[in-house]
Amino acid sequence: MSNAQVPVPDAFTTYVDEHQTQFIDRLKTAVSKKSISGDISFRDDVRKTATWLQSEFKRLGVTNTTLVELGDQPKTDPPVKLAQLVTARVDAPGEGKKTVLVYGHYDVQPVDGWAERNPQNPDAFDLGILDDGKVLLGRGSTDDKGPLMGWLNVIEAHQALGISLPVNIRFLFEGMEESSSIGLDNWIDEEAKKGEEGFFAGVDCVCVTDNYWLTTRRPALTYGVRGIAYFSINITGARDDLHSGIYGRMIHEPMTDMVKLLGKLVESNGLITVPGVEEMVPPPTADEREQYAKLDYKVDDLRTDTGAAVELSECHTDLVMGRMRYPSLSIHGIKGAFDKDGLLTVIPHQISGRFSIRLVKPQTPENIIPLVTSFLDGEFAKLDSKNKMQVVYEGGGLPWVGDKTHWNFQAADAATQAIHGTTLAPDYTREGGSIPVALVFESALQKNVLLLPMGRSDDGAHSAREKLDTDNYIKGTKVFGAYLYALSAINTS
Amino acid sequence: MSNAQVPVPDAFTTYVDEHQTQFIDRLKTAVSKKSISGDISFRDDVRKTATWLQSEFKRLGVTNTTLVELGDQPKTDPPVKLAQLVTARVDAPGEGKKTVLVYGHYDVQPVDGWAERNPQNPDAFDLGILDDGKVLLGRGSTDDKGPLMGWLNVIEAHQALGISLPVNIRFLFEGMEESSSIGLDNWIDEEAKKGEEGFFAGVDCVCVTDNYWLTTRRPALTYGVRGIAYFSINITGARDDLHSGIYGRMIHEPMTDMVKLLGKLVESNGLITVPGVEEMVPPPTADEREQYAKLDYKVDDLRTDTGAAVELSECHTDLVMGRMRYPSLSIHGIKGAFDKDGLLTVIPHQISGRFSIRLVKPQTPENIIPLVTSFLDGEFAKLDSKNKMQVVYEGGGLPWVGDKTHWNFQAADAATQAIHGTTLAPDYTREGGSIPVALVFESALQKNVLLLPMGRSDDGAHSAREKLDTDNYIKGTKVFGAYLYALSAINTS
Repeated sequence: MSNAQVPVPDAFTTYVDEHQTQFIDRLKTAVSKKSISGDISFRDDVRKTATWLQSEFKRLGVTNTTLVELGDQPKTDPPVKLAQLVTARVDAPGEGKKTVLVYGHYDVQPVDGWAERNPQNPDAFDLGILDDGKVLLGRGSTDDKGPLMGWLNVIEAHQALGISLPVNIRFLFEGMEESSSIGLDNWIDEEAKKGEEGFFAGVDCVCVTDNYWLTTRRPALTYGVRGIAYFSINITGARDDLHSGIYGRMIHEPMTDMVKLLGKLVESNGLITVPGVEEMVPPPTADEREQYAKLDYKVDDLRTDTGAAVELSECHTDLVMGRMRYPSLSIHGIKGAFDKDGLLTVIPHQISGRFSIRLVKPQTPENIIPLVTSFLDGEFAKLDSKNKMQVVYEGGGLPWVGDKTHWNFQAADAATQAIHGTTLAPDYTREGGSIPVALVFESALQKNVLLLPMGRSDDGAHSAREKLDTDNYIKGTKVFGAYLYALSAINTS
Repeated sequence: MSNAQVPVPDAFTTYVDEHQTQFIDRLKTAVSKKSISGDISFRDDVRKTATWLQSEFKRLGVTNTTLVELGDQPKTDPPVKLAQLVTARVDAPGEGKKTVLVYGHYDVQPVDGWAERNPQNPDAFDLGILDDGKVLLGRGSTDDKGPLMGWLNVIEAHQALGISLPVNIRFLFEGMEESSSIGLDNWIDEEAKKGEEGFFAGVDCVCVTDNYWLTTRRPALTYGVRGIAYFSINITGARDDLHSGIYGRMIHEPMTDMVKLLGKLVESNGLITVPGVEEMVPPPTADEREQYAKLDYKVDDLRTDTGAAVELSECHTDLVMGRMRYPSLSIHGIKGAFDKDGLLTVIPHQISGRFSIRLVKPQTPENIIPLVTSFLDGEFAKLDSKNKMQVVYEGGGLPWVGDKTHWNFQAADAATQAIHGTTLAPDYTREGGSIPVALVFESALQKNVLLLPMGRSDDGAHSAREKLDTDNYIKGTKVFGAYLYALSAINTS
């Protein structure tokens, strides 16, 4: 299917252009909901966001919508209900239409440090419209309320124009994504097992809209994500924190052991030094390297996004392969050690070092855990310390690489070029982060999964300056619509 | 002077025994003052504590007492006044009496974690009387309000009994000790320079009551303290914290560099690995080692105090030498890294590793700083990281070793044995911690300085379970009194 063959109605794209202001208002309303899933004190806000989303669907004529309860959050007393799934079914008229499952999430990250970082726009939940309307600043703007509103915009345009959607859509919007998607996997498995009776009956392909372009200028389609294995190193010494003047050089200090162990995990150049971890990943073939080399990515893109020249390589191919096809190890912090201003002279007695490894195939948490644990056990033994040390696997997820040659990707490719033009043919990317739901869908439904991003590389999801470019929001809405038409038109045989 | 020759009146020691309850009430009142100097929001409480102390002196007939203002705390806007010095002069009748300068402090550490650690006594400022009256639990009980109240008890006993004190006393009670004694050194220097017009006119010796016994069972006299040099390693990478999924293996991560640098500083066995630091300290002579071996200290004392078997050596001599005559290096924490529960996958972008080195002669901050800085600069260069790294010296103090053969120590030794008995002759100790004021007094006044502790090794100063044993409080009060009589009687020629 060539781009010209994407049968997206001009009326649709024109409607989107003409209703930009209303669409931004919709996003403003969405951002105003304080749907922080990781902080139980905001749970009411998260759950009200679900209700609001459902009311939006109904207002747009989608009557087949439900709020799915997932039970209580584990380890809460008194019980705290999980955020609901919002589902909605839109059926295209006529027989034999394809059915696409669309996934996104309406919960967001906390807003620590936002006011300091944005003195002009101190309220993260009040969408700021900056730079002559070009930038939409606010928590959740790009992760993941922008994409969700994009889908509502598509529905609205069709309702307003009185034209039918070209495919059936099953919307599944989640409210616990920023909290490990508690309860989601089970529900997906159960519904999938119900077959024709379940929510996923008839689904032909899956579209996840919860990621970002590789750069600030070129759209992307994403066919893989890294997995993750999250670890703690717990070290315990004395019964309480101790005064370093009195006990310094009398006892084994947990921090001394901790920095030595953490220092053994990874080189400054990013090479993981836990034996066996790097060796598991085959070196890239010349062909494969060529594919990464072709990606429209420059060292300057990284410098712009991070605001500093701290790249591991001067070669853009190395950089994108570092993110996409190699594992990485990051040390996040040490819980229980002194983390404030001032000159406290304490010997912390019980500390927990946190690090995670992003995994690529054939790495799995299962085959990584024993390598990490036995290596650290051995290194700790060498220290000859009387402290107690334990390595704990805290959780993780598998890496995923989908089939980027599938018609699902072809449709998205055509839709993207139809909207952005052929000079902006999408990058085919893998994500460095972990989007476990992609693999969950693929496993449960045995259908192709596509990641179709709306935002750009510099959006700063999770950060204290999250934004979405208006252009991405509006063109993204058009791409979503065009994708439905491309799906409808594409030959699947 | 033998013990029997300490002319301490029986009436005094009897009075102390008979007024135990009132003395504990006095400490209870002192502890109830929230005199946390390190937190500006408590500054009013600190300053009111000074006023209360002065009123106590007056109530006990000491009319020559002043509150000395030290100006505003640096870098405060609006200005915040420093806590006052409380001075009091007590003159013995007659000519040719010796004059002793007594130093202590009335400010205390913050109380983070106290309620969790003491569910039965959750209020750190409400002195708990536990274990059938044997233990006094509360913030400041041993550091340093117990000793201060001990001195007030001595004054009260003499006033009540109508007997004169045997020596002149100059009391100097400070309220910023837990905040680096801001303003104190300058004031001491100025007053010392005034000579006969100054506060220190006629002072013959100095007694600092702000430390602890080496063990739980034997009194101590302290003739040395370690110095300290406090450092930060500041590492900066990207502009903001970054998502490890997206940027892991694309950029140099500050935490990776940090743990490598911190890991180079010290071995798990306590040996400092910064070249030149250990080499500066001469090995102990056989004689010296013998002196430390004679100290009444057991490995089990350390295990009891720390609640764990994490000692660096099975040899008690090594342990006490580790505290007293060797330098030590402790890593306190990393500011700016993830220090909470949960599995945040952030790459911290700006972090500050904190460590300090306790110094012994001939080490000084001045000769240690270049060793630490050039070593870390060199190690960082080896990492070939594009992050920015800077070593910052945050402050410190010189080590001090006084003359333990001086009559000031002889008097304290005799007083201690007069109260505790000859089987509990005091340990002569050096402190692992830093009490800079000892060296300041010695330098400014050129007089012998004695550290005369009241509390025991397991008191947990600064910790969330600070206590003072009632026995130490009461016997300590008697020792303070007996020390004055011993000073009066001793031959100083």
